[in-house]
Amino acid sequence: MTALAEPGFPGGFSGLVENESGASPIVLVCEHASRMMPAPWGDLGLSEDQRRAHIAWDPGALGLARGLSARLDAALVHAPVSRLIYDCNRAPDQAGAMAVRSEVHVIPGNQNLSAEERAARTEAVYLPFQAALHGVLMRRLARGRATAVVTIHSFTPVWHGQPRAVEFGVIHDADDRLARAILAEAQAQTGLHCGLNEPYSAADDVTHTLRVQATPYGLLNAMLEIRNDLIADAAAEAAMAERLAPVLRAALHSLSPAAAA
Amino acid sequence: MTALAEPGFPGGFSGLVENESGASPIVLVCEHASRMMPAPWGDLGLSEDQRRAHIAWDPGALGLARGLSARLDAALVHAPVSRLIYDCNRAPDQAGAMAVRSEVHVIPGNQNLSAEERAARTEAVYLPFQAALHGVLMRRLARGRATAVVTIHSFTPVWHGQPRAVEFGVIHDADDRLARAILAEAQAQTGLHCGLNEPYSAADDVTHTLRVQATPYGLLNAMLEIRNDLIADAAAEAAMAERLAPVLRAALHSLSPAAAA
Repeated sequence: MTALAEPGFPGGFSGLVENESGASPIVLVCEHASRMMPAPWGDLGLSEDQRRAHIAWDPGALGLARGLSARLDAALVHAPVSRLIYDCNRAPDQAGAMAVRSEVHVIPGNQNLSAEERAARTEAVYLPFQAALHGVLMRRLARGRATAVVTIHSFTPVWHGQPRAVEFGVIHDADDRLARAILAEAQAQTGLHCGLNEPYSAADDVTHTLRVQATPYGLLNAMLEIRNDLIADAAAEAAMAERLAPVLRAALHSLSPAAAA
Repeated sequence: MTALAEPGFPGGFSGLVENESGASPIVLVCEHASRMMPAPWGDLGLSEDQRRAHIAWDPGALGLARGLSARLDAALVHAPVSRLIYDCNRAPDQAGAMAVRSEVHVIPGNQNLSAEERAARTEAVYLPFQAALHGVLMRRLARGRATAVVTIHSFTPVWHGQPRAVEFGVIHDADDRLARAILAEAQAQTGLHCGLNEPYSAADDVTHTLRVQATPYGLLNAMLEIRNDLIADAAAEAAMAERLAPVLRAALHSLSPAAAA
């Protein structure tokens, strides 16, 4: 197996932090930012098309997250490795952490992983990502800064052959305050077809980051899902960031005027 | 301010891990294991007596935890620095993380800490401790190993001038299964004066480690509190470990016979 050669791959597997000292209360997180499959794992036996598809990453999510980071002046933490190597939004004992199958695709390089291989991927990808995000959040709490966690995802317009009508999904875990506020602002401000807990919900085990990094600290949190045909190139990512930045700002303000000022 | 000179101080502030590959499902945690006050913080303006008292650490807790680790063949993670520098069982925005006062004692070196000083202590002590514990737990989950988290604490027999009758407290957070099983076994097997959620409870913000490291992963968990006059020297620590090891083993077995086998 050979690594996907890509300019700009940082050469390490830690979570990547941008604009840590940004003024916004929001910390953006993008667990599925990357489709990189570096050595020692290589291509997992997948074709080039498969490695570029939504099973490997959330297309457009990092571009949108960077657009939001710039417009809100918000910190951003993103993962440098494909979720098929390790899905940073899953605990190591969850089936999706190192998926043997994704939608209709079998992942050859993830079949019959040994306990040692699972531990090695956890050590190389999951732990550094979680530590990087934890560091950003805890340094803020130490400094007394208001903090909310918003994770940015994209979803495929067609899933198992079925088209999806929803364009913008807002997902919550135990604390639904920020998700409901974002939904209300998106419905009021945008023409997007919005859904609460669509196309996934916490019952689908998609809220791991929120559960581990936000809820135990009492931080406001939500997961955003954008249909990836709406953020298919850099111009579309920027346009969506332009639509959603005021939504996030207004939602936070509605909950915590002082923090969002 | 000068550092407390102590043989064996490891020179770093990471969480210290012993017996990581131990066979037991239990992972022992001792957040208040140490009374060390290393450079750059020094003695925080406290007298030698204060630095040896329960306000600086949980006397006997590490000895008891090591005794349990040996008898159960359990992994153990403990903090290398006094809780008055940073209390690893508190989030950085909790008042007790860098306490300005403990029981009747003012802590001079913790008055009016700047945001930068709070962030620096968080970075130097809390983050590495949490990362060390997280690593031990996540590598176990990756390997498919049954895992339960048990934190080991001690409490002072006299608090604000009032004697405390309870000898052994078992404290739970959201998931009370393991705590109730330990309490039942302790009452059946030992002559100890036992209490549930005594001398503290989750309402006193003492269950941070359980909330962050166990609950989000669905791991069984409990916090144990032993009155420190019962573990006042090495012989007493060993004797208490001998009494409590079968209690923990039986409690786990009652919940999960396969895991505890």
